[in-house]
Amino acid sequence: MELPSNTLANAVENLSNLPGVGKRSALRFALHLLKQPPEEVQQLATAIHRLTTDIHYCHLCHCLSDSDTCPICASPKRTQSIICVVENVQDVMAIENTQQYRGLYHVLGGVISPIDGIGIRDLHIDTLLTRVQQGLPAAVEEVILALPTTMEGDTTAFYLNKQLAPLGVKVTTIARGIAVGDNLEYADEITLGRSILNRIPFA
Amino acid sequence: MELPSNTLANAVENLSNLPGVGKRSALRFALHLLKQPPEEVQQLATAIHRLTTDIHYCHLCHCLSDSDTCPICASPKRTQSIICVVENVQDVMAIENTQQYRGLYHVLGGVISPIDGIGIRDLHIDTLLTRVQQGLPAAVEEVILALPTTMEGDTTAFYLNKQLAPLGVKVTTIARGIAVGDNLEYADEITLGRSILNRIPFA
Repeated sequence: MELPSNTLANAVENLSNLPGVGKRSALRFALHLLKQPPEEVQQLATAIHRLTTDIHYCHLCHCLSDSDTCPICASPKRTQSIICVVENVQDVMAIENTQQYRGLYHVLGGVISPIDGIGIRDLHIDTLLTRVQQGLPAAVEEVILALPTTMEGDTTAFYLNKQLAPLGVKVTTIARGIAVGDNLEYADEITLGRSILNRIPFA
Repeated sequence: MELPSNTLANAVENLSNLPGVGKRSALRFALHLLKQPPEEVQQLATAIHRLTTDIHYCHLCHCLSDSDTCPICASPKRTQSIICVVENVQDVMAIENTQQYRGLYHVLGGVISPIDGIGIRDLHIDTLLTRVQQGLPAAVEEVILALPTTMEGDTTAFYLNKQLAPLGVKVTTIARGIAVGDNLEYADEITLGRSILNRIPFA
């Protein structure tokens, strides 16, 4: 499609790099922006630009933060003896939304995946081990592995368990089972099988 | 959803103002941007910012342009005696893509719609009449109305025809009929009826 303006074409080109956005959606975005008050468009541009300058990562848990230590790691209200290991920042937000967890986090930044060229050194595994060994920010009693149940997630969990076990810390993993509201007859066999093996006392 | 960083929250807030983009997609965009090289993100921010500073509208046809006169109005290769009246810039691009039209355009910027509070004065109708009267950029022989077949589009076309007729210019409208590749049996009655009324000589 030929655009009547290079400025527009440039905006469309850049917007279409967003995930799931094609040339048509990008054009729709750009034409929408042209109809908005200039201040609003400039606000958007500034907000995007600030992602490159104002975002920090917590030096303890590697979660996104506005400062060097994230609000969760800095909070005295959180149980500092429990660390929940997750793949990425989205997982932290998902667990925070449940309001069921009051401990700290550790964001690996991915899972071990030789096919994608992601090895142990590409993940924040060494800092996790340091946190457990040195008790950062406090003595660690339990590490919860909340990793995806994929081949890569399981490999990462297995490796982490092997590294953490000698440090004398309790290693747990989140429960897998039938989702709340799901019918047994439609559940896959592996999940249903696990949910029977890992059954718990009824109330 | 609570976000771990105000900078991120601000970006999500602004991105979710894009059409068809909710908080979840906006978060996906923002987290995607965080993983990109900073130069690319800054490029996007600049491209968006430039939409507010570098975009001009053609003083003749009101189409988007990088300069005061758009490439189409400025081109000596276009037939300057024919003006195609369209609702918006997207329509110009759609017609340009057909490569079937070599005349000029006039972008109204909308259609008459009392419900949305859009009246005659909100549209570029006066400049269209001036172009026809004064022959800008050249003497006008024909005005093609390529407006949507909605109540509002028809009202606008009717009004334009009433204003243009006394100026001694030929007023035409684009053909309505069965789309190429469509089956007659699935066509709506109004379209099929019109296509019979407006039949043309076979080759």
